[in-house]
Amino acid sequence: MVNVLRFGMVGGAVGSFIGHVHRKGASFDEQARLVAGCFSSSYERTLATGEQLGLDKERLYRDHCEMAEKEAAREDGIDYVIICTPNSNHYSAAKAFLQHGIHVVCDKPLTITVEEAQELVQLAEEKGLLFGVTYAFSQCPAVKQAQLMVQNGELGEIQVVMAEYPMGSLAEPVELEQGRIIPWRMVPEHAGISNCVGDIGTHIEHTVSYITGLEIAELCAQLDRFGGPQRALDTNAHILLKYKNGAVGNYWCSQVAIGYDNPLQVRIFGTKGTIEWCQEIPNYLIVRKLGRPPQILARGHTYLYPEVAQMTRLAAGHSEGYYEMFANFYRKFNNALCKQKQGLELTAADLDFPGVRDGLRGVKFIHRCVESSQQGAVWVEFD
Amino acid sequence: MVNVLRFGMVGGAVGSFIGHVHRKGASFDEQARLVAGCFSSSYERTLATGEQLGLDKERLYRDHCEMAEKEAAREDGIDYVIICTPNSNHYSAAKAFLQHGIHVVCDKPLTITVEEAQELVQLAEEKGLLFGVTYAFSQCPAVKQAQLMVQNGELGEIQVVMAEYPMGSLAEPVELEQGRIIPWRMVPEHAGISNCVGDIGTHIEHTVSYITGLEIAELCAQLDRFGGPQRALDTNAHILLKYKNGAVGNYWCSQVAIGYDNPLQVRIFGTKGTIEWCQEIPNYLIVRKLGRPPQILARGHTYLYPEVAQMTRLAAGHSEGYYEMFANFYRKFNNALCKQKQGLELTAADLDFPGVRDGLRGVKFIHRCVESSQQGAVWVEFD
Amino acid sequence: MVNVLRFGMVGGAVGSFIGHVHRKGASFDEQARLVAGCFSSSYERTLATGEQLGLDKERLYRDHCEMAEKEAAREDGIDYVIICTPNSNHYSAAKAFLQHGIHVVCDKPLTITVEEAQELVQLAEEKGLLFGVTYAFSQCPAVKQAQLMVQNGELGEIQVVMAEYPMGSLAEPVELEQGRIIPWRMVPEHAGISNCVGDIGTHIEHTVSYITGLEIAELCAQLDRFGGPQRALDTNAHILLKYKNGAVGNYWCSQVAIGYDNPLQVRIFGTKGTIEWCQEIPNYLIVRKLGRPPQILARGHTYLYPEVAQMTRLAAGHSEGYYEMFANFYRKFNNALCKQKQGLELTAADLDFPGVRDGLRGVKFIHRCVESSQQGAVWVEFD
Amino acid sequence: MVNVLRFGMVGGAVGSFIGHVHRKGASFDEQARLVAGCFSSSYERTLATGEQLGLDKERLYRDHCEMAEKEAAREDGIDYVIICTPNSNHYSAAKAFLQHGIHVVCDKPLTITVEEAQELVQLAEEKGLLFGVTYAFSQCPAVKQAQLMVQNGELGEIQVVMAEYPMGSLAEPVELEQGRIIPWRMVPEHAGISNCVGDIGTHIEHTVSYITGLEIAELCAQLDRFGGPQRALDTNAHILLKYKNGAVGNYWCSQVAIGYDNPLQVRIFGTKGTIEWCQEIPNYLIVRKLGRPPQILARGHTYLYPEVAQMTRLAAGHSEGYYEMFANFYRKFNNALCKQKQGLELTAADLDFPGVRDGLRGVKFIHRCVESSQQGAVWVEFD
Repeated sequence: MVNVLRFGMVGGAVGSFIGHVHRKGASFDEQARLVAGCFSSSYERTLATGEQLGLDKERLYRDHCEMAEKEAAREDGIDYVIICTPNSNHYSAAKAFLQHGIHVVCDKPLTITVEEAQELVQLAEEKGLLFGVTYAFSQCPAVKQAQLMVQNGELGEIQVVMAEYPMGSLAEPVELEQGRIIPWRMVPEHAGISNCVGDIGTHIEHTVSYITGLEIAELCAQLDRFGGPQRALDTNAHILLKYKNGAVGNYWCSQVAIGYDNPLQVRIFGTKGTIEWCQEIPNYLIVRKLGRPPQILARGHTYLYPEVAQMTRLAAGHSEGYYEMFANFYRKFNNALCKQKQGLELTAADLDFPGVRDGLRGVKFIHRCVESSQQGAVWVEFD
Repeated sequence: MVNVLRFGMVGGAVGSFIGHVHRKGASFDEQARLVAGCFSSSYERTLATGEQLGLDKERLYRDHCEMAEKEAAREDGIDYVIICTPNSNHYSAAKAFLQHGIHVVCDKPLTITVEEAQELVQLAEEKGLLFGVTYAFSQCPAVKQAQLMVQNGELGEIQVVMAEYPMGSLAEPVELEQGRIIPWRMVPEHAGISNCVGDIGTHIEHTVSYITGLEIAELCAQLDRFGGPQRALDTNAHILLKYKNGAVGNYWCSQVAIGYDNPLQVRIFGTKGTIEWCQEIPNYLIVRKLGRPPQILARGHTYLYPEVAQMTRLAAGHSEGYYEMFANFYRKFNNALCKQKQGLELTAADLDFPGVRDGLRGVKFIHRCVESSQQGAVWVEFD
Repeated sequence: MVNVLRFGMVGGAVGSFIGHVHRKGASFDEQARLVAGCFSSSYERTLATGEQLGLDKERLYRDHCEMAEKEAAREDGIDYVIICTPNSNHYSAAKAFLQHGIHVVCDKPLTITVEEAQELVQLAEEKGLLFGVTYAFSQCPAVKQAQLMVQNGELGEIQVVMAEYPMGSLAEPVELEQGRIIPWRMVPEHAGISNCVGDIGTHIEHTVSYITGLEIAELCAQLDRFGGPQRALDTNAHILLKYKNGAVGNYWCSQVAIGYDNPLQVRIFGTKGTIEWCQEIPNYLIVRKLGRPPQILARGHTYLYPEVAQMTRLAAGHSEGYYEMFANFYRKFNNALCKQKQGLELTAADLDFPGVRDGLRGVKFIHRCVESSQQGAVWVEFD
Repeated sequence: MVNVLRFGMVGGAVGSFIGHVHRKGASFDEQARLVAGCFSSSYERTLATGEQLGLDKERLYRDHCEMAEKEAAREDGIDYVIICTPNSNHYSAAKAFLQHGIHVVCDKPLTITVEEAQELVQLAEEKGLLFGVTYAFSQCPAVKQAQLMVQNGELGEIQVVMAEYPMGSLAEPVELEQGRIIPWRMVPEHAGISNCVGDIGTHIEHTVSYITGLEIAELCAQLDRFGGPQRALDTNAHILLKYKNGAVGNYWCSQVAIGYDNPLQVRIFGTKGTIEWCQEIPNYLIVRKLGRPPQILARGHTYLYPEVAQMTRLAAGHSEGYYEMFANFYRKFNNALCKQKQGLELTAADLDFPGVRDGLRGVKFIHRCVESSQQGAVWVEFD
């Protein structure tokens, strides 16, 4: 295959949930192949992972700096790197690869500080490198349909946004169990200044932004650390928002919502209609238009926008899920990279995947929420 | 029937939506009979209504003062009055009947001002009269089940409350239609200082309070008048709350949520479990407990608390709805009144219906929301 | 009220589930009033019921013959009788009232034998008396909408019907519990030749017939007596059908379907579209049209047929249920009777409630199912 | 990777829906790699597919006989072949590979005639070769949970089975569109004696059999060719069944059910409980137990049987779909084959995937349905 891209990974050792998802996603459409990695801070784990995945031992690295340098020097070096480590390593890893001219895909949230994110934006843009940030939920076909409906005015002017992401995963003090390692998302050194907003609140922010294009003017956030006094970071957040167009929003994310697995839900209310999407039933989009009965749009039908058809692989009724969202992200990223490698100009349509500026905005969002809450849940300006 | 109570009505002429519901509800279990009324500010409409309902013409009155006075003077005078006029008349009507020693049922919100509500509380308690306020949603059997589960600790300690009441009824500028009378809820003189919070937000406040018993410490409310510049009152509100026990809440009510009819929804999240109820599917209660699959409890089953069985008339699976919620309110009110007339002491269980103090709290809630919003959506103390 | 009709009841003593529903339904719109009764085979129970309902003692009767005779002789005698006894009494009671010129409403199934049902049809038609049979589910507004959609060709030609009525009420051998009275529906002398088909299968037959107008050509039925060897009648039935227009149908009813309360569900598949209605969520109708997303129609909206609006009392989103279905049946029956009493001609629209011929067809359906099953689940002709 | 298996494909050229699904499924867990193929009856299409997938040209074959012979002769020949051609080719292709000692995975229905299927069973068993048949729906984790619940007696004795598979894909006469090729499933030469039962009815049969282990004693089937007189094969079927244990069943499959995509649904009713699964919401299983509220079990939770955990890759709430069902089939098949290649004895647990005897039973099911229907929908014995 002439056009198959080569990628490496930082993080994502075998046994890592999200590492597997990235690997499957990047190669789902047989456009890219894993060839190198620094999968863990433990070189032994990197070696074991590399062996299991059939990689050449000389392309298994002790740290990301070595990897960036050596891969950049190879004739057959990687086209891009996927960074899926704990948050605190994103910045230095991404910077290293960018500096060596290697394109980057990085997990969210992009960095710990706003300044780091700004630096990555500047570096990627100066170097002309592609930089994707894996807010995968927005790559669901139904979300694309939602975005196109908004863009085409089917909902009129947006007035209200309701979005939530309730999980029950930290309802119990899991970190107090004997011998258990505290999940890194709960440790400030690895996760940054927020756990709940940083991990899942940022998905709300991105998905709403992707669908509506609304820009946040101000927000007011109340963060709580439910689950025990030992908790150093938030596990629940309520966020009110005012957007620049005059609309208002209400986001809720929680990790103490018992019985909820992962139902990120976004509802957009406009002057002509309403849409509703939920990540746990991702193949459907509920649409309510003025004076008409609610409709349930389903993936795979010709009544959807043509762009949506390109984001699906199975006939209607054969369910697609989380892997396919990543596959859609990577299909767009791989396509854009192939085109750029051929010296072609990239259009906005080519870049229709979450990028480094989305990553920066996400980091700002986390910081604004924490600032607001620390001051007593007051309104703070976003920019 | 020796024990059949007699009631009168202020407001609720034939053609009035809520008037019919009150009438059916009060007599649903054949415990009370309508015998008098001042159904409208138009005496002609009162006469026409009385005739259609088969009432004695001498018990049809021009105004509520005349009615209170004359009914109080009769041997066979009404036991209680139902007030279902626009909000602005509640206070004077209720006061008139209380002063004449007649028990009162009044629609919500109780009054326009907090002072008026306080005065009614004082008057009713001094006189020893029963005073019900028809927050009917809390009288749904599934809501009672929810309350008992909280009281019995099945959910542990409450940490988060999410509640919403979206409607689409004012999505269009209905008040601008040629020749159309502006709905009184949109007119400050009749509705008071709020439309959306006053009409439906207050239902959220009551239902949550009834289920959880949580007391609001502070709230922060953002009210908007979506639907056109001609609107003098709110049509959408987002309210963040802190309760005295440390829990946080998030209420949303809207009349511009296109495609939504009436789905008041309440979700309560505790340290041991979660419950969810929605008014449009009122016969079911979704329960999620730590480590166990979600359950759907249905009305009419023996796995519910025994008190819940008393609030239902039909076998499981035969749906009950809005009328039956009113019927449950009135069954409790009628029972309490019969017992009081027999000179018996009323217990807390006898008074398990929304009363004048619930009405007062509701009026305070409306005022706090408006105050907060007018100051820029800042936090205000509830008491 | 000049126009208030007077009705009596045979069966339906206080404590009877369906008796209360009939009483509420007949008087729901204040068009008719209960004045006489023979509520039980026990005169004591009849007296107790009459006293509780405030009836005149002289209008409480020992048997239905006495009641028919005496009421027919009174100036202020009943306009119609409601018969809600066990099945085996329907025939003789209905016959007695018809012979005395009194209109009849009777519960389903109409009679035990086909011949009895035919005799009632003949008698009612000869006498020119109204005869309603309370297949109440077809009186739900959403069912009317379904019927009108079929009649107006919105579904094209009907090809397939799927309908089911699963209940779990007889999953356990309740009749073996110490001291428990066997429910009359399980006793051939009271219920006739079928329990499950007779009680709930007949609702399927009627609802499908009401919506589609399809006539059954042949059927093939497999009846089983799950629940223990002591059972003398069926508790589960699968029925395949061929209709005269070439469509095929599949009905299933069961009383051993654990966890199901009462979800009578009907799905109609035509060449242009599909509709789906379920009794447990009665306010909604799901419509699927060729090439378009499924829609959820809700009661109370202007996009429904105008005739549907007349069958509802509450605004959209305020749920209506089982009582309102009976109220709709009785509203039509009461209206028709008033009109007939005024000497006016009744149109087909006036008679749009289940009548004696529907009752006859239902009894035939039960008999054909039992015949087919007894012969080894072979195809039998319907007529 | 030492242990990576090599597979080839017959059928499944690029552009084929199911070909892609098989390819992704077989290699989902990086246990097997495609190395050879005869993807189409057109050698040009085979070459184009091979090139796109990066295969060695010498391993692209003109027909399956050549492929079987040459691959069998290679040192690095394929371990197994995947056959996903139209039905009529399954038999000869499978036979060719078995005769050359190559393991087989074949799409369903296994063959056109019962005799062919019997021959394949005999051949595979004589040769000691693995033979999988891709009834993928049974490989959904929720279906495994259902099976284990039945096996562990959680539902008691099974009494009733309700299963359906409605689709709307042939509601319109798509085969009459100008210039359109008739889908091979509608052509007897390619599809065999049935379209609807053969394509989707057989999925019902397998899924029910996999969950319950019930054996069919007799069945009675009504097949119809809705959709136009030009149709040579069935598009709708109703099937009543009696199982050897005394239970009864009711299967419905349709391709003219407008608005339905792919909701294969299976409900199993036992003396202690009921389960319900639907392919369009595959991550959930609804369980109803005697006297308790219905529960919704979700993939990924510890309350499921441990065997179920092995069939899932993502955390609860991150949806899995159709690809993962195939991946589960192939994971088991690949594991079994690796074990067999190591000379180890295979246990029943190793062979917990649909095999050649399931394929034979499926073909018999199709034939019995057609026989019954042709005789007028009479009861026919299954064996």
